[in-house]
Amino acid sequence: MFKLYYAPGTCALASHIALEEAGAAYTTERLDFKANQQNSPEYLKVNPKGRVPALVTDRGILTETPAMLVYVAQRFPAAGLAPIDDPFAFAEMQAFNSYLCSTLHIAHAHRMRGSRWVDADDAAAIAAMQRKVPQSVTACFDLIEHDMLKGPWVMGERYTICDPYLFTLAQWLEQDGVDSKRIPRVIDHRRRVSERASVRKAIAEQLA
Amino acid sequence: MFKLYYAPGTCALASHIALEEAGAAYTTERLDFKANQQNSPEYLKVNPKGRVPALVTDRGILTETPAMLVYVAQRFPAAGLAPIDDPFAFAEMQAFNSYLCSTLHIAHAHRMRGSRWVDADDAAAIAAMQRKVPQSVTACFDLIEHDMLKGPWVMGERYTICDPYLFTLAQWLEQDGVDSKRIPRVIDHRRRVSERASVRKAIAEQLA
Repeated sequence: MFKLYYAPGTCALASHIALEEAGAAYTTERLDFKANQQNSPEYLKVNPKGRVPALVTDRGILTETPAMLVYVAQRFPAAGLAPIDDPFAFAEMQAFNSYLCSTLHIAHAHRMRGSRWVDADDAAAIAAMQRKVPQSVTACFDLIEHDMLKGPWVMGERYTICDPYLFTLAQWLEQDGVDSKRIPRVIDHRRRVSERASVRKAIAEQLA
Repeated sequence: MFKLYYAPGTCALASHIALEEAGAAYTTERLDFKANQQNSPEYLKVNPKGRVPALVTDRGILTETPAMLVYVAQRFPAAGLAPIDDPFAFAEMQAFNSYLCSTLHIAHAHRMRGSRWVDADDAAAIAAMQRKVPQSVTACFDLIEHDMLKGPWVMGERYTICDPYLFTLAQWLEQDGVDSKRIPRVIDHRRRVSERASVRKAIAEQLA
């Protein structure tokens, strides 16, 4: 039995969907970010980074979305969520997820989490970061639209752990100021992922 | 035969070391960042992101350090660079590398690459980012020192692809304003990695 720590509206949704798609037995525990629960002494024992997601397993606690997604795929190979026997295809999948975590998610985070990279009381610098977000996030989605999303799923014919991850980060693109009309393939992908039963179930639980 | 695109002083060193440790047959091609060669039409055909590293393989081109490192480890299993048959240990390794790419490297990049996240001509915002780097990068290395680096190698008794990656990013910590005295285990790790023949060879080639 796994336990997933999450907060609504975060990238933890990707791992939640993957657990659901894999047919894993798991429970969830919601953190209240408004109460800064992710930095409570109790949670810092789970994840000293003070972030979500974190996954409690029978061997220990895992963090970092790309690592957790692969772990779920490897632990539940029957679900076919990753090309685990093909190093090149596996690497392509990992490269996609690594881009999401280290470039797209980071560009997005400059709108809400600017104080990670400038002093929290420097309002001008915080605002300067926010002004750039539409441009930097749009550049990421343009690249995904034209060079990375193979279609119909991220990696082609096969649905993989890249799909719930892209779906999760694509929730935020309108708020980040991206014109959705320029990325029709990403928007169509988002719609198709949203219709999956596993996705509906994970979202319903997070919003309950 | 692989071909690695790199530039000196970048995170491409990690993949270079891994290829060397694996005993892979490879060539390298150096890009001149001062001439903005990473954004030349020719290189953008190799990697539309305009970044290094990129690895040309017999199946296609791979990017993103965490993905490339795992690929090398999986293609050369005899080198023992990753616990590829243990999903939990593999996930711990991936979580470490994911933290390096999406948190430590990003914190560092705000010193030299601030124009990714604010307008390039906003000198005050660029300077505000640079002022925060000592604090944000120190926080990463404190976490690595106390919670992540198992010792003697990152993952414990076994040298893995986490080691050249941490070594590579640890090259920059003094310039980022981190007081090396507070992270003796990281510094000792960096010294021990630097003494490996594969590491010396890769560095010598990049600096030649």
